[in-house]
Amino acid sequence: MANELIYEGKAKELFTTEKEGVLRAKYKDDATALNGGRKEVFAGKGKRNNTITSLIFRYLKAHGIPSHFIEQISETEQLIRKVEIIPLEVVVRNVLAGSLAKRLGRPEGEKMDTPIVEFYFKNDALDDPFINDDHVVFLGACDRKEIETLKALALNVNEKLQELFSEIGITLVDFKLEFGRDETGAIILADEISPDTCRLWDKETKEKLDKDVFRRNIGNLITVYDEVLNRLMEVVK
Amino acid sequence: MANELIYEGKAKELFTTEKEGVLRAKYKDDATALNGGRKEVFAGKGKRNNTITSLIFRYLKAHGIPSHFIEQISETEQLIRKVEIIPLEVVVRNVLAGSLAKRLGRPEGEKMDTPIVEFYFKNDALDDPFINDDHVVFLGACDRKEIETLKALALNVNEKLQELFSEIGITLVDFKLEFGRDETGAIILADEISPDTCRLWDKETKEKLDKDVFRRNIGNLITVYDEVLNRLMEVVK
Ligand SMILES: Nc1ncnc2c1ncn2[C@@H]1O[C@H](COP(=O)(O)OP(=O)(O)O)[C@@H](O)[C@H]1O
Ligand SMILES: Nc1ncnc2c1ncn2[C@@H]1O[C@H](COP(=O)(O)OP(=O)(O)O)[C@@H](O)[C@H]1O
Ligand SMILES: [Mg+2]
Ligand SMILES: [Mg+2]
Repeated sequence: MANELIYEGKAKELFTTEKEGVLRAKYKDDATALNGGRKEVFAGKGKRNNTITSLIFRYLKAHGIPSHFIEQISETEQLIRKVEIIPLEVVVRNVLAGSLAKRLGRPEGEKMDTPIVEFYFKNDALDDPFINDDHVVFLGACDRKEIETLKALALNVNEKLQELFSEIGITLVDFKLEFGRDETGAIILADEISPDTCRLWDKETKEKLDKDVFRRNIGNLITVYDEVLNRLMEVVK
Repeated sequence: MANELIYEGKAKELFTTEKEGVLRAKYKDDATALNGGRKEVFAGKGKRNNTITSLIFRYLKAHGIPSHFIEQISETEQLIRKVEIIPLEVVVRNVLAGSLAKRLGRPEGEKMDTPIVEFYFKNDALDDPFINDDHVVFLGACDRKEIETLKALALNVNEKLQELFSEIGITLVDFKLEFGRDETGAIILADEISPDTCRLWDKETKEKLDKDVFRRNIGNLITVYDEVLNRLMEVVK
């Protein structure tokens, strides 16, 4: 059946389409923090994130990154290939910030010599615990070979995104990716890449251009997401 | 200068000796939990742990594991080679228990197909945070090649210890190791291996024979440590 809601998450709704294996993702206006513990609605957030994600996935596809993205079909909607999501949040960090800065007892802003890749077990009830490769295998999330693929893809995405954001005066501090298996079992990039899932700092002013303005109550989310979208639209055609 | 206290930790005091590069470790009667937040003194704990550690390091040396251990010189003291401690707690797990069971939302007692190795950054002020390989390198604790050495040594120790404990009717659930660099830069096993640093369950009764009896207030620490020591003395000569 087409147009059936098959999943509602914190940021998106997923619907079936007439085409087997193709889903429609509808971006919501909700912003959440503390793993859903805090929630607010920002009118127009959904369409901005949908457009930003679409731009970025188009850019990544042009640069050889395999993904679920098919096309943006409306302000808030895009078509994606349905995948079997690997239950991991794959985080890449170029600059120390947020939870890791606290965890390691170092100030935010320290640049890494080489990017750090982290896995978090995607499980709301457990608060997405940070895990290592051995835990990934123990949990059956994926096997050792797939772990290497995830890391290589994540670092590849990082290189491409660092270039893109650098062009528009933004430091890509860190970001979260999700991956899935397509019908052949191949691992492809899925979910979204937006100011909800990235830490983006203006290169000059160090201003935060991401969900941290909501998490930390330090600015207007819509203004900031617009800034990112406008800059991206100048360089991604 | 000989006989100088150079470090007092939660479980041991370290003294210099007449011999350059050789330290005297004196085992204390203190038991701590919650990273030192809870503390109690158990008369006779120090001599039991010193003897247990000495037995185990002797056994490991006989089985080819390079370590700091030289010899037990009194009930509570042993001579060790001074090393530059790598600031990592290397944990090996064969059966799910403790913090990891909670973290992954699974019941204690689940057996792993292959052992799990974890790194914790040894830093009391930060509460020894769990970290991954990339963090180890970022923190400068050791390099990639040394990480592989640590993992291989830890798994090797695990095999030897599983055999030893199995012989005396004990399941080696998990344990913590520390490693250091000797004067040539080679990585060798250091610190201690005792019921303070292992989870040991009686194979038949599932009774806990380790510091969990203190952490969870479920038994007499001295009785239980004696049980482990007595069983070990039967098989390690
Ligand atoms: N191509 C895809 N196929 C199937 N599921 C997907 C795909 N891309 C993303 N998802 C999943 O869609 C769900 C909805 O997204 P979101 O609202 O961000 O959820 P969450 O609350 O888990 O963050 C998530 O579980 C995500 O993993
Ligand atoms: N061979 C060694 N050379 C130098 N230091 C060592 C050696 N073996 C263990 N240590 C260190 O001795 C210190 C004292 O041990 P302990 O009382 O267990 O300390 P802690 O409170 O850190 O657990 C620890 O910091 C440990 O890393
Ligand atoms: Mg999401
Ligand atoms: Mg110790």
